[in-house]
Amino acid sequence: MKKLNMIPLKNVRISDPFWDRYLELVKDILIPYQWDILNDRLENVETSHCIKNFKIAAEKETGEFYGAVFQDSDLAKWIEAVSYSLAVHPDEDLENTVDEVIDLIEAAQQEDGYINTYFTIKDKSLRFTNLQEGHELYCAGHFMEAAVAYYRATGKDKFIHIMQRFADLICDEFSPLKNSKGYPGHQEVEIGLFKLYEVTGETRYLEQAKMFLDRRGEQPNYFMEEMKRPDFKRIFDELKDYDVSYSQSHLPIREQKTAEGHAVRAVYMYSAMADIAAAYNDEELLSVCEALWNNIVERRMYISGSIGSSGLLERFTTDYDLPNNCNYSETCASIGLALFGRRMAQIEKNSKYYDVVERALYNTVLSGIAADGKSFFYVNPLEVWPDNCIPRTSKEHVKPTRQPWFGVACCPPNIARTLASLGEYIYFAENNAIWVNLFISSKTKSIIGNQEVSLELKTKFPYEGYIRIELSSEAAVNGKIYLRVPDYVKGCRVSVDGRNIETLKYSGGYCALELEIQNQTIDIYFDLTPRFIRANPLVKEDIGKVAVMKGPLVYCLEEMDNEANLPAYYIDTSSELSEHYDSEMLGGTMVIQCEGRKMIQEGWEAEKLYSEQKPVFNKKVLTLIPYPYWGNRKTGEMLVWMKESI
Amino acid sequence: MKKLNMIPLKNVRISDPFWDRYLELVKDILIPYQWDILNDRLENVETSHCIKNFKIAAEKETGEFYGAVFQDSDLAKWIEAVSYSLAVHPDEDLENTVDEVIDLIEAAQQEDGYINTYFTIKDKSLRFTNLQEGHELYCAGHFMEAAVAYYRATGKDKFIHIMQRFADLICDEFSPLKNSKGYPGHQEVEIGLFKLYEVTGETRYLEQAKMFLDRRGEQPNYFMEEMKRPDFKRIFDELKDYDVSYSQSHLPIREQKTAEGHAVRAVYMYSAMADIAAAYNDEELLSVCEALWNNIVERRMYISGSIGSSGLLERFTTDYDLPNNCNYSETCASIGLALFGRRMAQIEKNSKYYDVVERALYNTVLSGIAADGKSFFYVNPLEVWPDNCIPRTSKEHVKPTRQPWFGVACCPPNIARTLASLGEYIYFAENNAIWVNLFISSKTKSIIGNQEVSLELKTKFPYEGYIRIELSSEAAVNGKIYLRVPDYVKGCRVSVDGRNIETLKYSGGYCALELEIQNQTIDIYFDLTPRFIRANPLVKEDIGKVAVMKGPLVYCLEEMDNEANLPAYYIDTSSELSEHYDSEMLGGTMVIQCEGRKMIQEGWEAEKLYSEQKPVFNKKVLTLIPYPYWGNRKTGEMLVWMKESI
Repeated sequence: MKKLNMIPLKNVRISDPFWDRYLELVKDILIPYQWDILNDRLENVETSHCIKNFKIAAEKETGEFYGAVFQDSDLAKWIEAVSYSLAVHPDEDLENTVDEVIDLIEAAQQEDGYINTYFTIKDKSLRFTNLQEGHELYCAGHFMEAAVAYYRATGKDKFIHIMQRFADLICDEFSPLKNSKGYPGHQEVEIGLFKLYEVTGETRYLEQAKMFLDRRGEQPNYFMEEMKRPDFKRIFDELKDYDVSYSQSHLPIREQKTAEGHAVRAVYMYSAMADIAAAYNDEELLSVCEALWNNIVERRMYISGSIGSSGLLERFTTDYDLPNNCNYSETCASIGLALFGRRMAQIEKNSKYYDVVERALYNTVLSGIAADGKSFFYVNPLEVWPDNCIPRTSKEHVKPTRQPWFGVACCPPNIARTLASLGEYIYFAENNAIWVNLFISSKTKSIIGNQEVSLELKTKFPYEGYIRIELSSEAAVNGKIYLRVPDYVKGCRVSVDGRNIETLKYSGGYCALELEIQNQTIDIYFDLTPRFIRANPLVKEDIGKVAVMKGPLVYCLEEMDNEANLPAYYIDTSSELSEHYDSEMLGGTMVIQCEGRKMIQEGWEAEKLYSEQKPVFNKKVLTLIPYPYWGNRKTGEMLVWMKESI
Repeated sequence: MKKLNMIPLKNVRISDPFWDRYLELVKDILIPYQWDILNDRLENVETSHCIKNFKIAAEKETGEFYGAVFQDSDLAKWIEAVSYSLAVHPDEDLENTVDEVIDLIEAAQQEDGYINTYFTIKDKSLRFTNLQEGHELYCAGHFMEAAVAYYRATGKDKFIHIMQRFADLICDEFSPLKNSKGYPGHQEVEIGLFKLYEVTGETRYLEQAKMFLDRRGEQPNYFMEEMKRPDFKRIFDELKDYDVSYSQSHLPIREQKTAEGHAVRAVYMYSAMADIAAAYNDEELLSVCEALWNNIVERRMYISGSIGSSGLLERFTTDYDLPNNCNYSETCASIGLALFGRRMAQIEKNSKYYDVVERALYNTVLSGIAADGKSFFYVNPLEVWPDNCIPRTSKEHVKPTRQPWFGVACCPPNIARTLASLGEYIYFAENNAIWVNLFISSKTKSIIGNQEVSLELKTKFPYEGYIRIELSSEAAVNGKIYLRVPDYVKGCRVSVDGRNIETLKYSGGYCALELEIQNQTIDIYFDLTPRFIRANPLVKEDIGKVAVMKGPLVYCLEEMDNEANLPAYYIDTSSELSEHYDSEMLGGTMVIQCEGRKMIQEGWEAEKLYSEQKPVFNKKVLTLIPYPYWGNRKTGEMLVWMKESI
């Protein structure tokens, strides 16, 4: 199967009214801020010790390891984010810093290629003895991704060679020749090995990635066997009654039909499965990917493109179980879902995947980061009542305010690398075509036929549905432009050089324009009128409720724009949703208002918890803001799914 | 302050159409079944080892301790239940069995009076070194209650003497002379010491109970200090980040204004506080009891009279936080609430306390036990969807079916002792009056003036609101009958010997009848028409919902009487609630039906989780059964709070 190509990041320049604020945050705040954190230069932030760990492992300093077993991955994700940034915004100082840190990683690398500061500092003899929890392969995968990103950004291959040495060790260590049946407890190395294979052409890495996937679910279960060994040392208390579905090793991957276990692990694995399916032309594996995708998006995903219904073990639960106020919905899991969806879209050329990728990026990924770039959500609830998000309850994981940094710091650097690589999500390329997946103002170029074709996209999406695309090519060339028409678009008009196209042709949900490209202007008009959304009535938590969306953006009520006790609001879905751009609010945003009423407290006998009193309502205007912007002002209630006056 | 007396259990004979089935269960099933369990004679039930532990501690057998640190309390509660049963139904064999087990307890008692098999078998040197978790004082309290109950039932005082030896040891050990600042991590001994004081007149026990209460909340916190000791050995992993509010030791008891922490601990403590307040004529302490009571019943109690909103640590959370599908609502906590309420009613002579006692007894206490008496709920949710009550989620504590026996077995024997002592809840006595708190067909007698007055109450309550009371006395005597008029009764008529009383006099919510008692028949007519109940709109979870109650009984929907997806039902509160007695259903029960509609799944595009589709409804008749009877047929959904068509 031939998959669509990604356009190299350096060939995509974004300048977009909705996204620029985030991309500037990455460059100006997130990357330097996270670097300071990795170096423990900030007060009032949880200690990272990440660079220090590397210095100790490299024997440049003395001391003890500090941090989580996967602490190294913070550095990997930071380098990956910096690499994406450098691809677009060259910065000599920053590049020098990375070069130095790569030298440090090399210095911390062991004779045989091994890189992991936790085991190197604590006890080398324990290497690879606790795959269930050890995260060595997870960190390795992130470093491989970082090395590939840095190579693609700068052309420098030193880090690639460092990571090849580690990859070679991994291939040796987990070779069937060594009679190894091991595989990672947290999937990620499969993605890293695949990328390393892509840039080096070394099929050994591809094969090892496939092998890791194929071993999952073999009986007896590797992790259960591992725990029986006398030298097994538990790292995470909460995993002591290990459930193999937590790491998707309950069944061979080809027999998995439902998304189970820890959500981030799951979607990282499915992403790797899609890579392997395409590389091996493996239709069976691809159909497993489709089944898992469908299970998620048809039964186990929030409207915000988030996943993981349970706060305990951050896991999937069961079909249609989507509680709004105690879910996990981890930022990283939505990032993984976007990674999985992008791969499926490349392979299947169907717009439905990007309907979800876009949903995840615009809502949960952005919700994960504060407007100032300095605080973060791991958990992205759809309903928050700060009073009951208290310690030692089943909602203690839900935080009503973003946190400055986390002990387990996976999400912030993951957001950074995702935002920095946003350009990779917008377009795909083929020999004769450019595919437009997302509507983000940007310029790109790609070879069509033997001509370099430039494409410039201009839009105020998602607040306006008008999109202009300007094509230019030195000489005319026959080619196609595929425009994704999102599932939420009710009306779509397309004109080329001012001539309306009467009958649009579609291919897998993309509008296909066959053109003799030279200098064309394509104008696209999407109807992005805000709309009321309901959930499948099997989603018990959302029965009788509606959410409001505009384009891919989910909207929410915040207490400060309304009044306390948001669940007492009933929205009148027979009234119009009105919208206006408020340039003062939240750095400028489209605000939506609607009529409704509120069940009021006044008149209820205060000392009666239960009585026959009838409900009393007051008319109210409800004010909604985009979900990704919630929690940027005063701490208060937030609500996505509102009761509908039926 | 002069509190009302309880009427000795042996003077209350119950024969009631609603309760008889439960009382028979206790006598015929629960007591023998639990005895078999305590002796490990049953298969397919979690090992108890309770009797075995005593035999080992008594050095009659060898072996290791097995079970929870509070395993002994199962035996104590069993003896207490048996004692209440013997008070009403003398049974020589059973009494012999208890005598033998009392001998065994005596044999397991240490030289100095100490009784606890966990520490006696495991490590005597650890006695009283972990009050936070050790439960020695908790078990002691339950044995004291058992000893008092057995003495009152049989007149035999051997067990009293055994427990006095232990109580004396406790008074010595925790005497201020010994510079002890300790108090129990799980309150209960205060109740036991108070009862022991009542039967022995030994004020030392009263003073020790008061001292234990007064020490709570002293700074530095005893439990935090205890943890710092090098010999401290943690028993429960989940308490390692001990929060002192868990055991209500965050503040001195007189400064506590809200119900905090572990719900069972809380209400056992409040019960003891009420005992002490009355004994010491302590108005200040009584007002604290009132404040805590009000906080619970006005803000933190479920409609079913259950408490403990959080599944984690089985604790109170915050005002109006009453989730229906992930609450703890432990059976034992409702038992404790009833114990607290009964004491407050005795002191304050106000019917509002029994409105809650009755609610707890009729709903949550009964929900805790299956119709066959052989399986039990710890956790009493108000909404159950079996599919999502799965391990490793925040709903794993919620069980959709009752469990045969528990590793932590507090609830089943607690239900047994509560049902066996039901007679203690019905009446109170004064010199010149009998107070009728509950409407349970029964006979009792009490001295009024110098006459023995017999009272027989006949009713089909709660299914019918007609109650007849027949009084008889050899000679006429002036006295009062106080009839509780429940808060839910809209219309109440009372006639004496057929003459309607035009103007009823009330005292603290009790209807006060002044009579020259000789042979009277009092007829009481309560309007018990089923009613729709709403929660205070500050209870977010219940906004837009109604529950159905008849008298004190909460009703619920079960899947098998309706259809799956119960939250999709909307009840039409403008239609009538119709009721009919179904003698086939659930051993005979009043079934309530109502019109409504259901948001249907048919027509919803199955592959769409979210869409603009409008809801479609079908008309339905909803069938409701009493909440205590749920879960006695097929496993399925259950729902108390139904959506209201507004």
